[in-house]
Amino acid sequence: MNILITGGAGFLGRRLARRLLARGAIRLSGQERSFDRLVLLDRTDDAPFDDDRVHAVSGDVGDEALLDSLVDRNTDVIFHLAAVVSGQAEAEFDLGMHVNLDASRRLLQTCRRRGHAPRVIFTSSVAVYGGELPDEVRDDTALKPRSSYGVAKAIAELLLAEYTRRGFVDGRALRLPTVSVRPGRPNRAASSFASGIIREPLAGEEAYCPVDADTRLWLMSPRVAADSLVHGAELDASVLGDDRALNLTGLSVTVSDMLEALGRVAGEKVVERVRFAPDDAVRRIVGGWPAAWDTSRARALGFPVHGSFDDVIREHIEDIRGS
Amino acid sequence: MNILITGGAGFLGRRLARRLLARGAIRLSGQERSFDRLVLLDRTDDAPFDDDRVHAVSGDVGDEALLDSLVDRNTDVIFHLAAVVSGQAEAEFDLGMHVNLDASRRLLQTCRRRGHAPRVIFTSSVAVYGGELPDEVRDDTALKPRSSYGVAKAIAELLLAEYTRRGFVDGRALRLPTVSVRPGRPNRAASSFASGIIREPLAGEEAYCPVDADTRLWLMSPRVAADSLVHGAELDASVLGDDRALNLTGLSVTVSDMLEALGRVAGEKVVERVRFAPDDAVRRIVGGWPAAWDTSRARALGFPVHGSFDDVIREHIEDIRGS
Repeated sequence: MNILITGGAGFLGRRLARRLLARGAIRLSGQERSFDRLVLLDRTDDAPFDDDRVHAVSGDVGDEALLDSLVDRNTDVIFHLAAVVSGQAEAEFDLGMHVNLDASRRLLQTCRRRGHAPRVIFTSSVAVYGGELPDEVRDDTALKPRSSYGVAKAIAELLLAEYTRRGFVDGRALRLPTVSVRPGRPNRAASSFASGIIREPLAGEEAYCPVDADTRLWLMSPRVAADSLVHGAELDASVLGDDRALNLTGLSVTVSDMLEALGRVAGEKVVERVRFAPDDAVRRIVGGWPAAWDTSRARALGFPVHGSFDDVIREHIEDIRGS
Repeated sequence: MNILITGGAGFLGRRLARRLLARGAIRLSGQERSFDRLVLLDRTDDAPFDDDRVHAVSGDVGDEALLDSLVDRNTDVIFHLAAVVSGQAEAEFDLGMHVNLDASRRLLQTCRRRGHAPRVIFTSSVAVYGGELPDEVRDDTALKPRSSYGVAKAIAELLLAEYTRRGFVDGRALRLPTVSVRPGRPNRAASSFASGIIREPLAGEEAYCPVDADTRLWLMSPRVAADSLVHGAELDASVLGDDRALNLTGLSVTVSDMLEALGRVAGEKVVERVRFAPDDAVRRIVGGWPAAWDTSRARALGFPVHGSFDDVIREHIEDIRGS
């Protein structure tokens, strides 16, 4: 049995890979199934794993011939994480559609040609929501994305559900809250600051916050994110039914809440490294996202939940020390 | 100023063309604008109009070069009606996606390249809804299509909204109830019977009804359909705002109601020409569609409304006599 992760060199892809390698198996239809090969596809083949099971492949996830060469009838589980992030998709419309929409569709077409209906776990996003939203967004709140990123994610969700209904794949679209604290450097996601205002001060650097202190965010820790992806892969199709898009669990916090937590965990000196520098483009995108959603379905399905944001910061500090 | 109708040789395309030719103009931003050219694109160039303004073009609506040759900066209004109907899209997945999804996207791309943000009026459908539905579906009920046709329509709605948000087009997605009484012959729409059980008996022929007598349908007459498309083109963008998908007005009737109306208008002998012949594939598709929806937004925006289904049958009889 093989596993494919697209976006396998990204922070979530690596974290997920590490988790899978440590477990060595994945539970499918009640059976622990060990895997022989873990294929990590990304633009770079930079994969920091010294493990014979790992095959790092460099290429364009929208390249159908490449996908055809990577997915065979032993590929029972595919984690499709590759994406152009929200800020970049807004600035580069065609590139965003190429990766976030077309690559997803080509991957589904590849699976269809193989004919064995592999499990496809697709990371969707809070950005599929927009427009006038209820206080608490539900799994079945209408999708009115107001960003190119959100539109492509919403379309890919529809395709995943349809390919599942037709029996071409066994799909699960997991809507992730904004992941914080993401390790690494700032990126072009509109939500990049949600990690930066914690990560940079902890590293002794200044950080800029482009939104107001009372902006409410819906966050997920990297640990819960990776565990949720594995859980999403292991769920039986029968418990999921026809609705294959799920809002994962998160923490509803304001920027102020986050900075207060940072103060409690790391001290006020660290918090003083954060400066507010309003950016209207970011405020507009982030302001349109829901600040909390109803996660009763995810919880009923056994997806992992969070402690406090203080715990999330401590997790990040442990991860940094460990690496 | 030019107007393009894709699917221009279909019954709704022809009816719309007739309506536009009779008016000779369309009201845009408060001004009556006469048009020089009405381009009808369809698979056949069979257009029964003896009018210098009409240019009938035969070709594939998914052919980007053809679209490029038909849309210029004078094309201010595009009615995008071309579609592979629901039953055929279910049977021929790739063909359905080619026309219902890819052709819609290519048309939007062509408009984007032109750079003048033409009005694009797109016919969407009751089939975008599915799964567990409230008694009365609203404009903002979540889209969970359960047919390949509905999925492609839902995706095209999302693309139309996005291309509108980016300023590439000025889009309006009008969700049409099942149109009845459609003239002509039965087609491969799952809802074909909704016209057949009225049209064929009136023409002295037998008709088969594949669903139960208590099946509730959400219907729109051809006259209201064509008038709604013109009204949708004439609305100012400012009154539409960001939400560009609208549920049009309809009549909520059961098959029994329809046959009783047929009896009142045409006599019991005519009704006796209808036979019930259950077809599970059709029942499954049609049974998943909403039987009524909240049309308060469409009515507030001044879209035309129906009289009774008796009136709809009388309209059909007049149309038949007229042609």
